[in-house]
Amino acid sequence: MNLDTIFKPKSIAFIGASNNYMKWGFIVLANLIQGGYKGRIFPVNPKEKKILNLDVYSDVLSIPEPVDVVIITTPAETVTKIISDCVKKGIPSAIVISAGFSETGETGKKLEKEMVDTAASGNIKIVGPNTMGVVGTSVNLSAIMAPVQPTSGTVSFVSQSGNVGTQLLALGESRGIGFSKFVSSGNEGDLKCEDYIEYFGEDTETNVILTYVEGLDNGRKFLDIARKVSRKKPIVIFKGGQTNAGATAAASHTGVLAGKQEIYESAFKQAGIIKAASTDELLDLALGFSKLPMPVGKRVGIITWGGGWGVVTADACEKMGLDVVKLPEWAISELDKILPPYWSRGNPIDLVGTTDRRPHFQALEILTRCENVDGIIALGIVGASSAFAALGERFKTSRAFEIPAEFVDGMIKMVERVDAKFAKKINELIREFGKPIIGASIAPQESKLKYEGEEIIIYPTPEKAATVLAKLYEYRNILDKS
Amino acid sequence: MNLDTIFKPKSIAFIGASNNYMKWGFIVLANLIQGGYKGRIFPVNPKEKKILNLDVYSDVLSIPEPVDVVIITTPAETVTKIISDCVKKGIPSAIVISAGFSETGETGKKLEKEMVDTAASGNIKIVGPNTMGVVGTSVNLSAIMAPVQPTSGTVSFVSQSGNVGTQLLALGESRGIGFSKFVSSGNEGDLKCEDYIEYFGEDTETNVILTYVEGLDNGRKFLDIARKVSRKKPIVIFKGGQTNAGATAAASHTGVLAGKQEIYESAFKQAGIIKAASTDELLDLALGFSKLPMPVGKRVGIITWGGGWGVVTADACEKMGLDVVKLPEWAISELDKILPPYWSRGNPIDLVGTTDRRPHFQALEILTRCENVDGIIALGIVGASSAFAALGERFKTSRAFEIPAEFVDGMIKMVERVDAKFAKKINELIREFGKPIIGASIAPQESKLKYEGEEIIIYPTPEKAATVLAKLYEYRNILDKS
Repeated sequence: MNLDTIFKPKSIAFIGASNNYMKWGFIVLANLIQGGYKGRIFPVNPKEKKILNLDVYSDVLSIPEPVDVVIITTPAETVTKIISDCVKKGIPSAIVISAGFSETGETGKKLEKEMVDTAASGNIKIVGPNTMGVVGTSVNLSAIMAPVQPTSGTVSFVSQSGNVGTQLLALGESRGIGFSKFVSSGNEGDLKCEDYIEYFGEDTETNVILTYVEGLDNGRKFLDIARKVSRKKPIVIFKGGQTNAGATAAASHTGVLAGKQEIYESAFKQAGIIKAASTDELLDLALGFSKLPMPVGKRVGIITWGGGWGVVTADACEKMGLDVVKLPEWAISELDKILPPYWSRGNPIDLVGTTDRRPHFQALEILTRCENVDGIIALGIVGASSAFAALGERFKTSRAFEIPAEFVDGMIKMVERVDAKFAKKINELIREFGKPIIGASIAPQESKLKYEGEEIIIYPTPEKAATVLAKLYEYRNILDKS
Repeated sequence: MNLDTIFKPKSIAFIGASNNYMKWGFIVLANLIQGGYKGRIFPVNPKEKKILNLDVYSDVLSIPEPVDVVIITTPAETVTKIISDCVKKGIPSAIVISAGFSETGETGKKLEKEMVDTAASGNIKIVGPNTMGVVGTSVNLSAIMAPVQPTSGTVSFVSQSGNVGTQLLALGESRGIGFSKFVSSGNEGDLKCEDYIEYFGEDTETNVILTYVEGLDNGRKFLDIARKVSRKKPIVIFKGGQTNAGATAAASHTGVLAGKQEIYESAFKQAGIIKAASTDELLDLALGFSKLPMPVGKRVGIITWGGGWGVVTADACEKMGLDVVKLPEWAISELDKILPPYWSRGNPIDLVGTTDRRPHFQALEILTRCENVDGIIALGIVGASSAFAALGERFKTSRAFEIPAEFVDGMIKMVERVDAKFAKKINELIREFGKPIIGASIAPQESKLKYEGEEIIIYPTPEKAATVLAKLYEYRNILDKS
């Protein structure tokens, strides 16, 4: 199903556009303009002449040009009439933000059916109603109620909750995850979760598909689509309504029966869908899948600046089903030549806090070259420069003593330079050996770091790095079996 | 065991103090001075006269005043002689940062034994050797190798890994967790993990005890102490070496056998120790235990601005063993009066995105008053102001259109005022009903928010809030059974 007019429209009619700052007709329109939408916008409001510097039209039919999608924020009872105007004008799609439909009871249910039937008569595809909106970064489309403007990337996300969806977009934004498309599917009066997944599957701008699902009207269709799409791109799901309490809440929220958790679990697995254990993990996986190659096997090599994190990481890997393998003899011998005699002589490679950084580069390369290592977790050796810079600032402004500012700045630059070199090295090794190398370090609030243009993936805890590596391997298995 | 001279020393001798910026004798001393240590510092170095503006002494014995603790960064083979000087001077304690002891092999093991035996002859208590240092915020003591300076608070933390410990301190700092004391226990040549726990148990500045443990020399003693201390204060543990891979890494790291995981698990449980499932969770629990009352039962009430997070939270609560109870009839009736007719009419209380904030206050109070609700999770209703302010800034600087800056600033102030009122309300309700109220909101990178002086606890995901509530209840049970 082609949904380009929704996610990459050339022109938009905005019904309910308003000069009243408190109305969604203002807030969503302002988000859209402020986001830098690349196409034309035709605000519609019978009472206004200008809104946000744009000429206003009294109704859809008086717009003199073709319209790809109409955004509607007017009250529920006005929407069917608007849709029927859209049918007359031959508009192919609508984003119905208006609430007051099936989520409010019987009257709303009737309104929704009328609206959807009218749309069907003109082959209009409907997002919503009761959607929080749509994002399409390739045309700078931010048709959304929430204060989020994700950066451009290859992750596309369909959420059955606008609330969960937009908050995860915001969290994702703060972690440096780039999104291609987002949709809050709302009441799914017309387009369903699986329709968006099918579209994302075909979409050349999407490499990873995220979905938050509470319930499915047509489980068989969802699974058929997922089975096909998951052979091409990873689908990562977080399911709401996994427990009795959650299912009860979901029934009240989206009105859909959440169904037996075990049935969902096994059906999702058979369809090749990757499950996220938490909303946090959904974002961790989005980042990892969008940037890292998959390991060919489950054998992991760990390198760490200090011993403790190595222990925590080895635990996390084994718990996730990965093998922390013995290093080959040749690797131990090579490492013996460059590390202090009391290094761990095993996996994890414990660099025992050595301050000379050159052996760290060599050790990482040796580990990556190991023929029995499929994926690497690197702890603490890259990503420290931001923490270091913060310390430097404290030293420079200290009133207790004086250290020459040039010296402190020189130190900070040096650490930054080492981080940049590491980033470059990591990306070279990934390209040469095709193995994922995942960092873990306290440094970033965000999870993706860029040093002099070299982007690498770093998680704030080793447990997250281990989880992502295990799930990359899970997806590799899904592809191998299909 | 009283360890005040280590964590609250009145005076410090620093052996190995240096003017060389690249040496630990400079870095740790600079951290100490820059941190604003309240006592006197006597740097010791036979070759220097002044270091960081301080008068330097040629050896410990030439210091003309009493010394509470000596910090040592000189090479391992010099330490025993220094300790024997400390015995002569009657110094009660030492922090041995120097490495090169039992962690490096047989020769180091001998050096460590000599040093410890010498200390014992003068009743000197030793931290380390091979420790990354000690923090004591009540006297601004930052005797630590890593670039962290935690803010003051009531959490005390002993870590068998300096690496894990200092990185968690830094992460904790960025989340607004206040620490009282921290120690990297190093090789535990003298003082062991359990000695610090015993001391923290008696320490009036400590309300919550964190510990990262890899292995125990004397499990029985550890458990005896933990059993006593956990009756007074929560002890939260993260155990490294839970799996074969982790235990192997731990054996190489601290040289201690990690032991059977199941035995540890059940022993810790019997001793009333709270287990953290990840390093991330250790920090979440530190925050929750330091600020929130414990619920008397496991019945939870959820209030949410939007439906989806309510579903996710209900799931998370049930998975953690909490009961998402039915609300009493009187509460439903009262809520019917203030919420739109299509509100969820159940638990979670779904505020269905209503933009009038006044009913949110009333609904939170009604939920807290429910006689069958022991703890509350509040989603999205407080903590939005920072996200909102970021949006406001974008709107003010937009080149696409103009919104009066005063209007935007007015809106931001309004949202901030609502957040501040909510914080005040939450703290009033906590005081009146003694029930924990935990927020979850995308807003904070940090987990603790302060609005006009009212501090409340907010986690970035509802799963974290549910976990903390469940663990607070677990500790309540531990206290009730003891």
